[in-house]
Amino acid sequence: MATSKYTVSPLGYVHGDEIRLSKRCTRALKGIEGFSHLIVLCWLDQAKPPKMQIRPKRSKVQPIGYLATRTPHRQNPISLTVVKLLKRTGNTLRVSGLDVWNATPVIDIKPYTPRDVIARHKIPGWVKLWDRKETDPLRKYSSKSV
Amino acid sequence: MATSKYTVSPLGYVHGDEIRLSKRCTRALKGIEGFSHLIVLCWLDQAKPPKMQIRPKRSKVQPIGYLATRTPHRQNPISLTVVKLLKRTGNTLRVSGLDVWNATPVIDIKPYTPRDVIARHKIPGWVKLWDRKETDPLRKYSSKSV
Repeated sequence: MATSKYTVSPLGYVHGDEIRLSKRCTRALKGIEGFSHLIVLCWLDQAKPPKMQIRPKRSKVQPIGYLATRTPHRQNPISLTVVKLLKRTGNTLRVSGLDVWNATPVIDIKPYTPRDVIARHKIPGWVKLWDRKETDPLRKYSSKSV
Repeated sequence: MATSKYTVSPLGYVHGDEIRLSKRCTRALKGIEGFSHLIVLCWLDQAKPPKMQIRPKRSKVQPIGYLATRTPHRQNPISLTVVKLLKRTGNTLRVSGLDVWNATPVIDIKPYTPRDVIARHKIPGWVKLWDRKETDPLRKYSSKSV
């Protein structure tokens, strides 16, 4: 199958704890205030090209494939964060838990729903070791900021 | 701020209950088999341009902004599905719960981690009504297929 490419365009940008969407998105947000949590996808325009396998800086833990981590440095540098929706004002959403840099482009917002909850899931043992060694908070797994 | 555009390139494609990634992704998958669940982002290349507000077909329920739904028809038609990882063989992942069409481009895979679990979240009352009226399974919220 031929490899195609697709174009992503920002809906808006992150400003502190606010997501400011373009004005034409205002109508598209109707009803979103009924959800307590949202899934925010950002395009990490500051990310670097991925290394296929990575490990925390200054550590000797086993390297891991980048797709088995949440590193921002990915073939398609899309971040996924579950945030708490505090308030909507027009085309602006005030949220907590969005751990991305200021001015990061937001490329999609989705309501968080029961299907997204997998209470009983397993993560490998190396995650804890990785977290202890990892200094970049964006790469940590087990901390819970929401 | 000037609006930029970004280019997404597929990591691989969906074939039935398998995600077949390009061969160069094999190394990037190392360690992923330790996770029971993954988050799969697809580019829904069959989606149409979004309508700002939508409602289930043949119904008279109140229209809702598309960003408050999981409709595939979005400005950036990215789907997000939590799947169960059954088996990894090289660059192929066998999964359950991936409700997208065959040959859909996969643009990112992330491990599902404790930060993604919001056990106590709220969804609005209209979701149940919407689900009852909605005939497109991709748009349903409350069914749990994983």
